[in-house]
Amino acid sequence: MRALVYHGPGQIAWDKVMDPTVEDPTDAIVRVDATTVCGTDLHILRGELPEVKPGTVLGHEAVGEVMDVGREVHSIAPGDQVIVSSVTACGHCRSCRDNAFGQCRGGGGWILGDLVNGTQAEFVRVPFADYSTRRTPGTLALDDAVLFSELLPTAYEIGVRNGHVSPGDTVVVVGAGPIGLAAVMTARIYSPRRIIAVDLSSSRLEAAGRLGADSAELPGRLMADLADGPGADVVIEAAGDPDGFVLCTRVVRSGGHIANIGMHGKPATLHLEALWRKNVTISTGQVDTSSTPWLLDLVTSGRLHISPLVTHTFGLSRMEDAYEVFRKISSPVRRS
Amino acid sequence: MRALVYHGPGQIAWDKVMDPTVEDPTDAIVRVDATTVCGTDLHILRGELPEVKPGTVLGHEAVGEVMDVGREVHSIAPGDQVIVSSVTACGHCRSCRDNAFGQCRGGGGWILGDLVNGTQAEFVRVPFADYSTRRTPGTLALDDAVLFSELLPTAYEIGVRNGHVSPGDTVVVVGAGPIGLAAVMTARIYSPRRIIAVDLSSSRLEAAGRLGADSAELPGRLMADLADGPGADVVIEAAGDPDGFVLCTRVVRSGGHIANIGMHGKPATLHLEALWRKNVTISTGQVDTSSTPWLLDLVTSGRLHISPLVTHTFGLSRMEDAYEVFRKISSPVRRS
Amino acid sequence: MRALVYHGPGQIAWDKVMDPTVEDPTDAIVRVDATTVCGTDLHILRGELPEVKPGTVLGHEAVGEVMDVGREVHSIAPGDQVIVSSVTACGHCRSCRDNAFGQCRGGGGWILGDLVNGTQAEFVRVPFADYSTRRTPGTLALDDAVLFSELLPTAYEIGVRNGHVSPGDTVVVVGAGPIGLAAVMTARIYSPRRIIAVDLSSSRLEAAGRLGADSAELPGRLMADLADGPGADVVIEAAGDPDGFVLCTRVVRSGGHIANIGMHGKPATLHLEALWRKNVTISTGQVDTSSTPWLLDLVTSGRLHISPLVTHTFGLSRMEDAYEVFRKISSPVRRS
Amino acid sequence: MRALVYHGPGQIAWDKVMDPTVEDPTDAIVRVDATTVCGTDLHILRGELPEVKPGTVLGHEAVGEVMDVGREVHSIAPGDQVIVSSVTACGHCRSCRDNAFGQCRGGGGWILGDLVNGTQAEFVRVPFADYSTRRTPGTLALDDAVLFSELLPTAYEIGVRNGHVSPGDTVVVVGAGPIGLAAVMTARIYSPRRIIAVDLSSSRLEAAGRLGADSAELPGRLMADLADGPGADVVIEAAGDPDGFVLCTRVVRSGGHIANIGMHGKPATLHLEALWRKNVTISTGQVDTSSTPWLLDLVTSGRLHISPLVTHTFGLSRMEDAYEVFRKISSPVRRS
Repeated sequence: MRALVYHGPGQIAWDKVMDPTVEDPTDAIVRVDATTVCGTDLHILRGELPEVKPGTVLGHEAVGEVMDVGREVHSIAPGDQVIVSSVTACGHCRSCRDNAFGQCRGGGGWILGDLVNGTQAEFVRVPFADYSTRRTPGTLALDDAVLFSELLPTAYEIGVRNGHVSPGDTVVVVGAGPIGLAAVMTARIYSPRRIIAVDLSSSRLEAAGRLGADSAELPGRLMADLADGPGADVVIEAAGDPDGFVLCTRVVRSGGHIANIGMHGKPATLHLEALWRKNVTISTGQVDTSSTPWLLDLVTSGRLHISPLVTHTFGLSRMEDAYEVFRKISSPVRRS
Repeated sequence: MRALVYHGPGQIAWDKVMDPTVEDPTDAIVRVDATTVCGTDLHILRGELPEVKPGTVLGHEAVGEVMDVGREVHSIAPGDQVIVSSVTACGHCRSCRDNAFGQCRGGGGWILGDLVNGTQAEFVRVPFADYSTRRTPGTLALDDAVLFSELLPTAYEIGVRNGHVSPGDTVVVVGAGPIGLAAVMTARIYSPRRIIAVDLSSSRLEAAGRLGADSAELPGRLMADLADGPGADVVIEAAGDPDGFVLCTRVVRSGGHIANIGMHGKPATLHLEALWRKNVTISTGQVDTSSTPWLLDLVTSGRLHISPLVTHTFGLSRMEDAYEVFRKISSPVRRS
Repeated sequence: MRALVYHGPGQIAWDKVMDPTVEDPTDAIVRVDATTVCGTDLHILRGELPEVKPGTVLGHEAVGEVMDVGREVHSIAPGDQVIVSSVTACGHCRSCRDNAFGQCRGGGGWILGDLVNGTQAEFVRVPFADYSTRRTPGTLALDDAVLFSELLPTAYEIGVRNGHVSPGDTVVVVGAGPIGLAAVMTARIYSPRRIIAVDLSSSRLEAAGRLGADSAELPGRLMADLADGPGADVVIEAAGDPDGFVLCTRVVRSGGHIANIGMHGKPATLHLEALWRKNVTISTGQVDTSSTPWLLDLVTSGRLHISPLVTHTFGLSRMEDAYEVFRKISSPVRRS
Repeated sequence: MRALVYHGPGQIAWDKVMDPTVEDPTDAIVRVDATTVCGTDLHILRGELPEVKPGTVLGHEAVGEVMDVGREVHSIAPGDQVIVSSVTACGHCRSCRDNAFGQCRGGGGWILGDLVNGTQAEFVRVPFADYSTRRTPGTLALDDAVLFSELLPTAYEIGVRNGHVSPGDTVVVVGAGPIGLAAVMTARIYSPRRIIAVDLSSSRLEAAGRLGADSAELPGRLMADLADGPGADVVIEAAGDPDGFVLCTRVVRSGGHIANIGMHGKPATLHLEALWRKNVTISTGQVDTSSTPWLLDLVTSGRLHISPLVTHTFGLSRMEDAYEVFRKISSPVRRS
């Protein structure tokens, strides 16, 4: 088959490689009908994640058809359409029993396209398939379905849920890339009073306005905007940037929450000399994808509208082009 | 009367000053039978809190007898023995209605010995007395009662409650000064599996052992001690030190809590490059003293034992000596 | 002034009575610009609440202008437009400090039109005015404002909040009278998957459909409707009827909630022989009206739409007519 | 092997039956080293559970050694000492993923000694062994270990946790049989102010006093005892009796919890005419045994002391005698 192989910092290629096969009795083989390029893939490409060895197939989001399963896989069968979660879960360890799949101690967690071959390929081997895939509802379009692999559960679990977004809240989302936009969308289900998206890019701010932010503005204006009130109830960091994080700590109200989603490459300054008496809660986290079935229900019952998140699609063989375009916005790549 | 007056950085004196009188109809005048010196007072003395003007009477913890009340004070009357909370609450603003007295927007919050004259004096004027005092249970010793002004509610609310200490938890308390020791004691009511106190001072570590810590150790040994498990469920920062805070972030387990109690004078480094995927919750906060009645119940019903926290007592006129001794451990000062 | 006076079972009259005056320093006198007739008033009229003495002015919901205040009232002043909460709160007792105003032990709770003269009058004396009134936002219509006295907070606090309505839930509301319809509306802010209203009256079912219920049906059809799933996540009893309550216990899923709002005159059967192993949570409660400011924010920011709840208005002097019409649906009565 | 076989109402015998074998790849075969007689077994014996067919081996609690496992069992192996949970969990259904094993929809739930052969035998087949057994800590005595099969998790999960027992609470336990006594013990870990056990039997009240209840009294005295306060914060129904349940609703305070553990054979009266305005929460439930590992930690770390719960032990062949004695108190039965 063909797959996007990492050959060291700055080097990827759409190579011919061996088809994956069932190795463990809990494996499934899935034909990839759609995958995406994630911000994390760009970090890998820059060599920032040394655990990714040259020769690894990248990618950790996919939807497709089950081709084969090991003898201990019971919840899916060949022919099923499934969403492959970016997080793999053994289902048995203490973390998995708490639905903290991202912290799996039994061989799972985020491993696809990192420690094992990933989804930017024609086929992918999915370990622990019973706990790492969900059946795709028939009514869901392919391009929408792939958002459930990671983007939507991350925005919801790590941003909206960890941040305790509640009706009437003022919510600030710092960073209006794909994950920030998904946070804007999933925050909406709790009827906040106002969602403010903040970014340095005017095209991203426009997208935020289109996708449901009540206002979309540059960081400089945010402080002035909130100056007449106590500050934001919830601030979601979706930029992965030290300055973005400091901004979050400045605009949150006493008693408010900062939910960090962003993947950070370096430390941030925590101004405890101001924060120690401010009653602030800061959370960090890796997605568990435990909310995927619930998010699917919300979308299929019409309570959550996600289609506008998908802006660019490519044929699978044009994966390298997708990487190029991605710097602008999340890019599903479909089987042609 | 006599009172401990701040005369600028490094300068305090046991001066003769005017007796306080009822100024607002919600005021009470309390005769101070016991007060304490708090770590915050040392920060003031070093000139680190510029809002404290020379001429201010210091101190924000006291127990004593009510001498006079304004006409709108209904819950206490002259002759009552009361605990004066370090936090003053208007009782009407949105923060106060949420029991977030420390964030009072109606003129309260922490003001005693800061923006208005405090409790290290023979008498003190207590604003908003209905919401800022509680009757002292008859069975409670004077030296124990003064711990309810701030020390115990702070350790409990900002450390134990914010940190979600639960039965079976491994709890680490960084800093074994008075507030850290009070955190060790109040954590015990939730039956944690193990409480580990950490400090650089061997005398403080000895005190922690006496007061109920299961182990008391230097920072260097802590990492090794926790190395065979997932880390601590709850880490309470009671040192007010950037290095102490970084230590907290290194020993907390994925899914665990860091509760900052310490008063910090400078920023700390937040290692988001390691923490972003670790599912950690960090909280900060100023005490509300809303838990004081509940803590009083626990002590008077024998469920919480606090007497060992008091190690040194002085006559009120020896307040300056108390400041000297304080660097070692919390110092109640009693009316002679 | 004129007021609706209770003269014993079955007897009310629009009588001439003495104007109310400030009796306690925490009182306010409010000119009633709109009031309503509540289901509870009908219970009183039938003689079912013996604590209501002949000679009492009925009514516990009102909006109007402050005419006079006692010397301890600080948050409102003559000329202010206010919402009078049905529940009066002393603000000082342990219940009030927990925002459990309905359980006030300091002389408050529900007393208006019950133990003291009420709001179905030209003027009303409001005890503990600081805690029992809220300023009316300027943008809010009079007829909408009066819904915040009791109807909306009751539906939200006792139905939606106690029932833990969450995104994606199936919610059943048994009883589509005013309170049930308000529960349908306030449940919507949490994006449930489906809200089913149940009633015996076809006109009420039509109203439920207009106000946002996804389906509105007779009790008999409900069981069949839910038969293919695990049952309802949340069931709200808004009928005050023993059979209605039993229906709730039959349609709730394992792990679900039953929130009783209805005022009951007799016991219900609790089928513990079926429920003991079903993991059900049942809650009861009297409104606290602590959510009123938050609900006002939701309405004024456009997140909650309530106007359709008001169906009939009368001039104040036609109060007796309003009682007649009320059996159909909630009746605001406006100052002409 | 020998096993206690149910032969219809009133008829049991210590029969010779076929040894169990692995039937499904997720099965384990366990040699029973200790089992118990549960109150539920007496209900079965009286014919009250018609789903139990004659010929079924009774019993659903056991500890012992693993003899054989199916090929999909990975967490235990022959030779391991294990606790067999009374509740069997498929581990894959939506209920199991929420740790609601008691509501398993995948073929589990409570089935041992009910729908399939149980543990009152020399050997037992345990379905879904990975999710239905836990390794026995080496330091735990056999007689203590068997309490983790059902008794302790039930008392904790359905009584203490559902009832939200908190520090400083007044807790009433109605029914001082084995499950009530276990509730007294596990409530203690949250440092309640006072635990009151209520029963009609003086020998049970004596046991309650020995096991940590602060007072143990007849129902008649309870009302008087609580009359000077607001009532109990938490009331745990561990009697399975309609009158016991009504007593619970009378002694709970406004804002308090009633947690029903008792297995009921008939309905109770719910006095909604008094409760509708009392802010009460009532919970019911079947144990999940998800707390078993956590309870094991508490016991092995010395935070919870359970040995006094075991009062009578018998050789396995004297199972029929154990049934006789059981009416007094829980009876572990050990392999001789």
